[in-house]
Amino acid sequence: MRAEIVGVGTEILLGQICNDNAQWMSQKLAEIGWDVLFHQAVGDNLGRITDILRVALSRADVVLVTGGLGPTQDDITREGIAAALGARLVREPEIERFLRKRFAAFGRVMPESNLQQADVPEGGRYFVPKRGTAPGLAFERADGVRLYAVAGVPSEMREMMDEHILPEMAALSGPAALVSSTVRVAGMSESKVAEVLDDLYRGSANPSIAYLAGGGETKVRITAKAASRPEAEALIDPVAEEVRARLGEHAYTTDDETLEQVVARLLKASAMTVACAESLTGGSLGVRLSWAPGSSSSFLGSAVCYTTESKRSILGVSQSTIEEYGVVSEQCALEMACGARRLFGASVALSLTGVAGPEEHGGKPVGMVCVGLCGEDVEEARTFRAPGDREMVRRWAEQAALDLLRRHLAGLPVPAQLGPATGTAD
Amino acid sequence: MRAEIVGVGTEILLGQICNDNAQWMSQKLAEIGWDVLFHQAVGDNLGRITDILRVALSRADVVLVTGGLGPTQDDITREGIAAALGARLVREPEIERFLRKRFAAFGRVMPESNLQQADVPEGGRYFVPKRGTAPGLAFERADGVRLYAVAGVPSEMREMMDEHILPEMAALSGPAALVSSTVRVAGMSESKVAEVLDDLYRGSANPSIAYLAGGGETKVRITAKAASRPEAEALIDPVAEEVRARLGEHAYTTDDETLEQVVARLLKASAMTVACAESLTGGSLGVRLSWAPGSSSSFLGSAVCYTTESKRSILGVSQSTIEEYGVVSEQCALEMACGARRLFGASVALSLTGVAGPEEHGGKPVGMVCVGLCGEDVEEARTFRAPGDREMVRRWAEQAALDLLRRHLAGLPVPAQLGPATGTAD
Repeated sequence: MRAEIVGVGTEILLGQICNDNAQWMSQKLAEIGWDVLFHQAVGDNLGRITDILRVALSRADVVLVTGGLGPTQDDITREGIAAALGARLVREPEIERFLRKRFAAFGRVMPESNLQQADVPEGGRYFVPKRGTAPGLAFERADGVRLYAVAGVPSEMREMMDEHILPEMAALSGPAALVSSTVRVAGMSESKVAEVLDDLYRGSANPSIAYLAGGGETKVRITAKAASRPEAEALIDPVAEEVRARLGEHAYTTDDETLEQVVARLLKASAMTVACAESLTGGSLGVRLSWAPGSSSSFLGSAVCYTTESKRSILGVSQSTIEEYGVVSEQCALEMACGARRLFGASVALSLTGVAGPEEHGGKPVGMVCVGLCGEDVEEARTFRAPGDREMVRRWAEQAALDLLRRHLAGLPVPAQLGPATGTAD
Repeated sequence: MRAEIVGVGTEILLGQICNDNAQWMSQKLAEIGWDVLFHQAVGDNLGRITDILRVALSRADVVLVTGGLGPTQDDITREGIAAALGARLVREPEIERFLRKRFAAFGRVMPESNLQQADVPEGGRYFVPKRGTAPGLAFERADGVRLYAVAGVPSEMREMMDEHILPEMAALSGPAALVSSTVRVAGMSESKVAEVLDDLYRGSANPSIAYLAGGGETKVRITAKAASRPEAEALIDPVAEEVRARLGEHAYTTDDETLEQVVARLLKASAMTVACAESLTGGSLGVRLSWAPGSSSSFLGSAVCYTTESKRSILGVSQSTIEEYGVVSEQCALEMACGARRLFGASVALSLTGVAGPEEHGGKPVGMVCVGLCGEDVEEARTFRAPGDREMVRRWAEQAALDLLRRHLAGLPVPAQLGPATGTAD
C-alpha cells in the first residue's frame, strides 16, 4: 500500500520550520507496512494546494495532509481538499458545539471566523480533537483512495494519527509489517563499519541493511518486510546477530537504545552512582546522564568547572599538574574525575576537558579531548582528536565519556583509542 | 523567480532522517528574493526521481536537487537528472583526477565504482568540492530553466550552495530581496503576543507578520519583499519598531539573537561573571551559557546538584530550609544561587530547582520550577508552573533563568510572573 505525505504552510517553504511532521509520519507508516513514495510541501495558496493534492490522489492509496486547518484566514487546506476531491464543504453541528464549549472552558468568546473549523467535505468523516481545536478529516473516494487531514501542530497531529488514522491504515494494510532493528555502534567510524559488514550489505535484500552516521556514532539499521511482525523479525534476527557479532563490543545495543540509556541500565543493575566533572561540554554530559525519567537514583551531579581556577578550587586539581601538563591533559582529566567522585561521594566519576574551538587553547589544538574515569580501584584516561565544529566536538566528547563508563560497568576492556576512530575520509 | 527543492533518498521517506536540507536551502533562497513554491522528496528509484524532476522542471525557474550523488550503487540521482533533461552522462577527466588524488591523500585505493562521481550531464557544468567527493552539478536548458544538484551531506550541500549556487541564483534574481527581521519574546504567551499585535497583523501585507512559538518563547517575524535589501529594510523598520514598543521589555531582541547570546553580550558589556546551581536541568543551563565561542570570559561554571545531599554539601543549602520548604522552593533556589556564587566567586549566580516529571516530587507537582538569582546586593526568586513533558519543562526553566539574568543585567524590573504566562489555550 502506497502513501504520500503533503505538508501545507508557507512557513515550511520560507524555511522557518522544518517539516518534521513528515518524518514522524513516515516512521509510523513504515512500522505498519506502508510504503511512503513521496513527500510534498506547499504554501498557503489555494490553487497550488489543490494541484498537488490532485497529483497525490492520482498515485497513492492514502494521502496524508498536515497543516492549514487552523481558525485563521490563512488556513485554507480545507478548501483545497474540497476542490481536489470535487466535494463541497458542509458545516457539522457537532463540531460547532465542541468549538463553542472549548472556548467557554477557557472563559473566552469564540470569534465567528473560528467556525470554519466545523466545515467538513460532504460525505467525509471527522475526528473531534482532545488537544487544540482542529478536527481531523477523513474522506474515501468511490475508487477507495483515501485522504486524511490533520493539524500541523505536532502534538495535535500525533494525537490524530495515533488514535484514529494509524489504526485505520493498519487495518487497510492488513497483516503486513515493515520491521526495523537498529544496532548502534560507538568508537568505530562509518567507513570501518561498512567495511566489516560489506558482504552482508551486498548479499541481503530482505532484510536490507542501511548505515546512518551522526551524533558521534554509527547506526546499522536492518529492515525486513513480511506478512506479519513475527515473520519479519525471523528474517531480521539472524542478520542482526551476525552484525552484532562482527562489530563486537563496539555494538552497544541491538535495540536502538541511546548510549545514555544503556549506561543508565547498567548503573541500575549494579546499584552504582555516577558523578561528572566537565569543562568543554559546559554541562551536556550531565544533561545526557540525567535525561531519562528516574535517573536521580544513579546520577548524583556534575561539577561544570569552565575555568582553571574552579578546577583547582572545586575539584582539587593540583597546581603542579596544571603547570606541567596544562588543563587539557590526561593528568588533569584524572584529577578532575577523582575530584568529582570525592565531591559527590559517587561510586564512579567521569571527566571531560578539551578544546571545543573555534580557537586553540594553551597550545592544544581544536578538537583535542581528554576523558577520564575514576572508580574504586580504577583510573583510566584517554586522549583523542574530534572532528567538526564546536557542537560536534562536544558531542564526540560526551560519547567517549559515556562509552568509557559503559565499558567500565560491563567489564569490557578500554581500547587504546576512544572517540572517533581514525581512517574516516569524511 | 520561482525555485523548487527536491530531496532524494529512501531514508527520508522511511523517516530515518529529517529533510532539513530543504529548510536550510529555503531560508537562504528567501534571503536573496527567490520564492520557493514546492518541496518534494522521493526515494532511490530511477523512475520516480525522473518523474518528479520533470514536474519540477515544468513549473520552476530553478530546480535544486540534494542527495543520491554518492559513490555507491544506490546513488542514482545523476541518472535521473540525465533522463529528466534528456541528456547523456559524460565522464569528466578533471573530476576523475580529483577523485584519484583525494583517495591517494587518505592512503586508500579508490574502488572503480567511485568513478560514477565523475559523470556529468552532457552540456552541463560541475563544481569540484572541498569536502567529500561529490561534485556539484549545474545544467541550463535552452529555455533558461536551470537545475543544480548537490550531495545530501549537509556540510557538503552548504559548501556548494554558499560558494557556487547561491551567488549564481542571486545574480539571476537581480536586485530583489526578501528580508526578515525577527523580534524574540520571553515571558509572554503566543496568544498574548498575537492579541497585542492583532491590528498590525491584519493591517500589513508587505511587510507581513508571522508568529512562531516554541522552545519556551515566541518569535515575531516581519518579512518584506522589495527591489533591494535597503528598500525591504525601510519597509520593515517602522513595523519592527512598533512591534518592539508594544511588547515592551518582553521583547529581548529585534535581531533574531538567542536569549543566551543577549545575556552573553550584556555580561561582556558589564564585565561581569556568572555561575549556576542546577538541579532539574541536569546541566543544560550551563550548556546554554557556555554555548557561544569565547563564553569562558564570563561563564565560570555550574554546580549540577541533582541530589538533596549534594545541594547541602556542595552548595551549602541549610537543613532547616530543606525540612521546612523542601528542595523545590524559592528559599532553596536562593540558597543554591548564593552557594554557587560563593563557590565559583562569580559576580552573579543563577539557580534552578523543580520537578521535570514524569512524576511529582516531594508533594510538588510536575512542571513546578523555582528560579533564583543572587548578586552583590540582590536576591530574587520566582516560582512558576511549566507545561509539557520533561524536555519542555527543562526548556522553560532555562528560559526563565536566562530571562531573569537578562533583566538583572539590563536594569529591568523582574515581574511577579516569570516563565510561561497564563492564558495559553494550547
